[in-house]
Amino acid sequence: MFWHESKVTVRYAETDKMGIVHHSNYPIWFEIGRTETTRETGLAYSKIEDLGIMFPLINLKCSYKSPARYPDEVIVRTCIKSVTNSRIVFGYEALKAADRKVLCTGETEHVWTDLNIRPINIKKVHPEIYEHYSKYAESIVE
Amino acid sequence: MFWHESKVTVRYAETDKMGIVHHSNYPIWFEIGRTETTRETGLAYSKIEDLGIMFPLINLKCSYKSPARYPDEVIVRTCIKSVTNSRIVFGYEALKAADRKVLCTGETEHVWTDLNIRPINIKKVHPEIYEHYSKYAESIVE
Amino acid sequence: MFWHESKVTVRYAETDKMGIVHHSNYPIWFEIGRTETTRETGLAYSKIEDLGIMFPLINLKCSYKSPARYPDEVIVRTCIKSVTNSRIVFGYEALKAADRKVLCTGETEHVWTDLNIRPINIKKVHPEIYEHYSKYAESIVE
Amino acid sequence: MFWHESKVTVRYAETDKMGIVHHSNYPIWFEIGRTETTRETGLAYSKIEDLGIMFPLINLKCSYKSPARYPDEVIVRTCIKSVTNSRIVFGYEALKAADRKVLCTGETEHVWTDLNIRPINIKKVHPEIYEHYSKYAESIVE
Repeated sequence: MFWHESKVTVRYAETDKMGIVHHSNYPIWFEIGRTETTRETGLAYSKIEDLGIMFPLINLKCSYKSPARYPDEVIVRTCIKSVTNSRIVFGYEALKAADRKVLCTGETEHVWTDLNIRPINIKKVHPEIYEHYSKYAESIVE
Repeated sequence: MFWHESKVTVRYAETDKMGIVHHSNYPIWFEIGRTETTRETGLAYSKIEDLGIMFPLINLKCSYKSPARYPDEVIVRTCIKSVTNSRIVFGYEALKAADRKVLCTGETEHVWTDLNIRPINIKKVHPEIYEHYSKYAESIVE
Repeated sequence: MFWHESKVTVRYAETDKMGIVHHSNYPIWFEIGRTETTRETGLAYSKIEDLGIMFPLINLKCSYKSPARYPDEVIVRTCIKSVTNSRIVFGYEALKAADRKVLCTGETEHVWTDLNIRPINIKKVHPEIYEHYSKYAESIVE
Repeated sequence: MFWHESKVTVRYAETDKMGIVHHSNYPIWFEIGRTETTRETGLAYSKIEDLGIMFPLINLKCSYKSPARYPDEVIVRTCIKSVTNSRIVFGYEALKAADRKVLCTGETEHVWTDLNIRPINIKKVHPEIYEHYSKYAESIVE
């Protein structure tokens, strides 16, 4: 299985009055992982958008294990879990860099769309994109 | 079942380059719903914190149904799904105010802790808090 | 002089580890004030965008007087300070609703552009927009 | 003059419906620059907080020159402009890494306080902190 590792440093603005990173920042960190992962595969998300393709998020799950604090270094591990005609699913783990303690795990499911956010069959419209990401997927569900 | 309705207006800053509200904002809207819901019950989250109790989020699920856009009016419906010794679970629905179309549904699970984010048994430490929220819970799992 | 008053409730996510609202949220609150103010004049910013006109921000000043805290109610007062061929300037005051204590004052300067973010002369391209906002401006500098 | 360079990659969540980075993100990028700059001097902001000292922001100025876009690499240059008994001022430049085009310049002024956000005379309370940062200041105003 292919895992990409991204690095994030906790921003002061990401903390809340509990003194820990507010939970709403993890989906943003996962997005950084997703961006870097697609780029690492050689087909960056920004290139996909240039081709008129997007994959907006339709399902998000986050499981918070341990709080991150300012100014922790965090590693965001990302994998492509599955690619289908209509969907792409990514998996994530955020670890504290100092001791690789798990901070948060997550999963995001996305639907293939055109620029007007209308669903498309990626295998028909851009089979090369489908093939490309499928190679990296942990498991391919059709 | 008890549902509280909060109103949110989409902020320009909440949009992204797709022209829609970025998914990371829904957990923040749900938090607004949670804040108002606890206040509506007569025991606001801010009062809980003053008592030395917090309930940090440990699980988040969001299911995105339809995009919100600037400057849409959004209704965030919140309910307390369950209260236990160790947990409290809230459920959410974000609707477009104009037509009550569902934008996003979600659920957050929280753990009862002290101010040092150490888990506590709320039923033992503050039975009155446990009793209070339990009355509003859709179902009480013990 | 025309001042519009908007209401904002401090979101938990807007706090930081100092226990106060992070300074980066005030520009977002000012944007809410700007949005409501343009709508209140009868020519909402969202309508302007539909006409192919934008006014991206080019200068921002914020002066922080007193911290806001969760879950304070905040009043954001907004005025149109000036309108010219190329610019529009807004002024702001954020007050704590409970005692109208000033939390922050600010100013934003914007440049009139087309949808490609190229500067335009609003007086030539859309004189009715120029005239409209000018009526509300504290002072008109030409 | 001492300038520290930090690197930031534009996050998708930082864009808005204009397709550019929303202006409210630059103060957060400047904060990253400030964090790294203090750490680079050998006395990190997080260490200052551990000593019971904070320097909340009281004045912010941003001047936006050119839009940043997803997924641009951005360099944030930070300097300490001045240190006094009561204040510390930082200066910033955000540049597009690809061509070092200036995206935004800014300045933040901060007041020395204790953990209760009460102003202090840093020169009296912690002269070593005052001395330390003064060495890096562009100019020392007393």
